[in-house]
Amino acid sequence: MSDAPPVSIDDVRRAAARLEGVAHRTPVLTSRTLNSLVGAEMFIKCENFQRIGAFKFRGAYNAVAQLPAEQLAKGVAAYSSGNHAQAVALAARELGTTAVILMPEDAPRSKREATAGYGAEVVTYDRYAQDRTALGEALAEERGLTLIPPYDHPHVIAGQGTAALELLAETGELDALVVPVGGGGLIAGSATVATALHPAIRMVGVEPAAGDDTRRSLESGVRVTIPVPRTIADGQALPTPGEITFPINQRLVDSVTVVSDEEIVSAMRFAFERLKIVLEPSGATGLAALMAGRVESLPRRVGVIASGGNIDTGRFTELIGG
Amino acid sequence: MSDAPPVSIDDVRRAAARLEGVAHRTPVLTSRTLNSLVGAEMFIKCENFQRIGAFKFRGAYNAVAQLPAEQLAKGVAAYSSGNHAQAVALAARELGTTAVILMPEDAPRSKREATAGYGAEVVTYDRYAQDRTALGEALAEERGLTLIPPYDHPHVIAGQGTAALELLAETGELDALVVPVGGGGLIAGSATVATALHPAIRMVGVEPAAGDDTRRSLESGVRVTIPVPRTIADGQALPTPGEITFPINQRLVDSVTVVSDEEIVSAMRFAFERLKIVLEPSGATGLAALMAGRVESLPRRVGVIASGGNIDTGRFTELIGG
Repeated sequence: MSDAPPVSIDDVRRAAARLEGVAHRTPVLTSRTLNSLVGAEMFIKCENFQRIGAFKFRGAYNAVAQLPAEQLAKGVAAYSSGNHAQAVALAARELGTTAVILMPEDAPRSKREATAGYGAEVVTYDRYAQDRTALGEALAEERGLTLIPPYDHPHVIAGQGTAALELLAETGELDALVVPVGGGGLIAGSATVATALHPAIRMVGVEPAAGDDTRRSLESGVRVTIPVPRTIADGQALPTPGEITFPINQRLVDSVTVVSDEEIVSAMRFAFERLKIVLEPSGATGLAALMAGRVESLPRRVGVIASGGNIDTGRFTELIGG
Repeated sequence: MSDAPPVSIDDVRRAAARLEGVAHRTPVLTSRTLNSLVGAEMFIKCENFQRIGAFKFRGAYNAVAQLPAEQLAKGVAAYSSGNHAQAVALAARELGTTAVILMPEDAPRSKREATAGYGAEVVTYDRYAQDRTALGEALAEERGLTLIPPYDHPHVIAGQGTAALELLAETGELDALVVPVGGGGLIAGSATVATALHPAIRMVGVEPAAGDDTRRSLESGVRVTIPVPRTIADGQALPTPGEITFPINQRLVDSVTVVSDEEIVSAMRFAFERLKIVLEPSGATGLAALMAGRVESLPRRVGVIASGGNIDTGRFTELIGG
């Protein structure tokens, strides 16, 4: 085994070249109202405007695009009820192959339809009676499909890092970068880029308070597993950090802070009313941490990744309360 | 009187220079989902991301900035319960002067607060008992204030035209440009730019069905007055086209189409769920016309101005119905 990190900034640059003309180069929004509220100059990288509505497309496409031709031709698979499902489905279609997505049979109809809408075959399972990992592996083996993991793969991590690469190309040096943490792929890729370009940058992760597995793991120095978190931030409801993402984050992330569901809802309302953008709960956690003062001694120029916007009007109303 | 049009593309270019670094250069969004739905390649100019949440800041700033120093020092005034109020308030603050905004006493608290938040003095009146024009003129004369009209002024029109100037600089030639019509300032400025740069471009205006005064006026060849329209598109609830905007639009606009309140709500929901942006009803009318097939024989490359996003979560929920 080598001591070289599994993902370098050059991997991210190559990912960016693959994504050129395929992924959106999402806009960076600024808001004087937000700046005075937070007390810093804020740059919001709007990955809610990414294809499929979240940053996940970057990593999925970068992974599928690097499969050998023969393997690619046989198709890909993923298990996810969230944004990764749509990301793999769309990546497969863009690269001329097929995708099979394993989803719990009680997943929201809108998510099943969106995934099927990108041309994927959706296979459902009973999440209370069946083990999705075993099912997914059996399905993949039987049909010769390649499983595309949602975060724990160097190609996925490198793909996610392109969001930070674009942000920093637009803003120049930042003093801090605030990134939502679920499995840790987005922040691992972002930290790889940001610390390579600007070694003094402070990398801050944000988790929902109920799902602070990465914070606890960083504190204890080993990957800890917590009960599956109950939080509105469904994209971050994971019990343990990734095997590949965690060591990267251990090396490059300065701190992880947490936000409550109420703070997330406030940030979603602010995003709607003042920034005029739609954020799903997980996509709003970075903004929530900044607005709630959860990032200590905030420096002058701060980037934040608004990582996704997949929420329908019904669920939005339910959360915001009209 | 000269035959020269009251606003030229050079006026718009000078307005753009004044707005440089003051107004946002708003992003242009694209969406493959929208393209396949509409059957054209769409470019959405997001003026909901403009300062104060709507294009109105462009025109107000361009007008206030051109006041002679002595007049500027005395302050400006406007009567509006909508986006123009906030636009004039912010333009005055940016240019180091004061603003007095006349608002009906039953205007939404959020709008009064936003206007006052930009440093303006808000003077309320009883909209059922008092005539705002007479009041505004009396107030302006008494205090030596300059009234900044919401659309019927060459400097306001030139300022609004900068939105189209930016859009076309980013997209290159377009086959059609679809623009919401209230008093007609945004489309007059946009048409001035677009037809000067690309004489073959088709200029399409959109009004709420209940407020089709510009469509009727273009058909009859004279400015007609209709009863004050009842529509959710409050930014377009005007009974008659402007004196200065109408002749410009008569010369440069190819057609005006209308949309129902239901079509506007559908477009707002689509903007939320698929584009991840917040549009107020008037801001969504252009998109609504395209989505509802109200623009006949749609050409290949089509721009649309999403003109504003000022709606709070309560009103949004009320309209969308959860």
